[in-house]
Amino acid sequence: MSLPERDTRHSIIDTAERFFRDIGYQKTTVADIARSLRMSPANVYRFFDSKKAINEAVLERYKGEQEEALARIAAGPGRAGERLKAMLMASHKLNEARFADQQRMQEMVCAAMEESWDALLSHIARLDALLAEVVAEGVASGEFREMEPGAATRCIQTAMLRFHHPLLINQCARIPGPTAEEFIDFVLSALRPAQPA
Amino acid sequence: MSLPERDTRHSIIDTAERFFRDIGYQKTTVADIARSLRMSPANVYRFFDSKKAINEAVLERYKGEQEEALARIAAGPGRAGERLKAMLMASHKLNEARFADQQRMQEMVCAAMEESWDALLSHIARLDALLAEVVAEGVASGEFREMEPGAATRCIQTAMLRFHHPLLINQCARIPGPTAEEFIDFVLSALRPAQPA
Repeated sequence: MSLPERDTRHSIIDTAERFFRDIGYQKTTVADIARSLRMSPANVYRFFDSKKAINEAVLERYKGEQEEALARIAAGPGRAGERLKAMLMASHKLNEARFADQQRMQEMVCAAMEESWDALLSHIARLDALLAEVVAEGVASGEFREMEPGAATRCIQTAMLRFHHPLLINQCARIPGPTAEEFIDFVLSALRPAQPA
Repeated sequence: MSLPERDTRHSIIDTAERFFRDIGYQKTTVADIARSLRMSPANVYRFFDSKKAINEAVLERYKGEQEEALARIAAGPGRAGERLKAMLMASHKLNEARFADQQRMQEMVCAAMEESWDALLSHIARLDALLAEVVAEGVASGEFREMEPGAATRCIQTAMLRFHHPLLINQCARIPGPTAEEFIDFVLSALRPAQPA
């Protein structure tokens, strides 16, 4: 892809994201996106063959940013527990910034869950792999109790749903409960070595 | 309320629940419920002044059953950790039986979340109180680590969302993860006394 083509692709993704945020995924048309960029719909279709494909590109960018942020923390300094906490907080903050108080963005997420489920599963699997590596380090060093790192990671991720799932970040804000930080501390205490009997 | 009146009220609730399950909350009308019971809509309105009020009565029954089941376990025999696990499993099983693979029931839940939020919050508060009492017993006996029982309970309930929330029971079945029992064991391990440093 040439540099101008890459720029055009980025502009389409930026514009689509703004439309999804402002008027919602359902109401946005490829024609809207094209008009806003002063190009023909045919030109948009040269880059993306459907609105679904544009949504996937918006999500690819989100997912890429999140995976990079977590990989950076995983590879950084600090004890396993500290890095795990920082990774879970970073995931929460990124999703909160994108989805909290953004009712319209929920449509985009719901569409992706219906239309691009496999892509979401791959993303979840990549995040799990990053977390599992840090869990494994903590188990190896004795900082965490003996457990299978993949199974422990899936428990951590299941527990974190309220703070990571785009649809729950809004909904659960109305239920009294712990802050993200209090909750992460609670969840990570499940990893501590058990008191000898 | 006379005995025949109570029976009529129960029949209305039973019939409404069946309609909500079969054709969904949105499509169900008070006239449908009345016709199915061979009574006039006016007669239904003698007992419930709106479809919302009927939905609240269906949910009241669910909530009553759940609170009774949990109270029974809380007051029963066993160590705090065993009772807590049994209470969380019972909540999961009850919600699973009502909502799993019942797409139409999601409408009823969504309607209740929009129309009767305070009633749901009171229910959550009563469940929290039952759990917090058992957590407090475990803390007092040294079976659990030192923590504020209310705060610990809200962390446990936040973690359990995937297995308790009617809308997530279906959605999350598609994400690979722990079974309810594996997950409850993980969560409860966050309550164990910490290894002395």
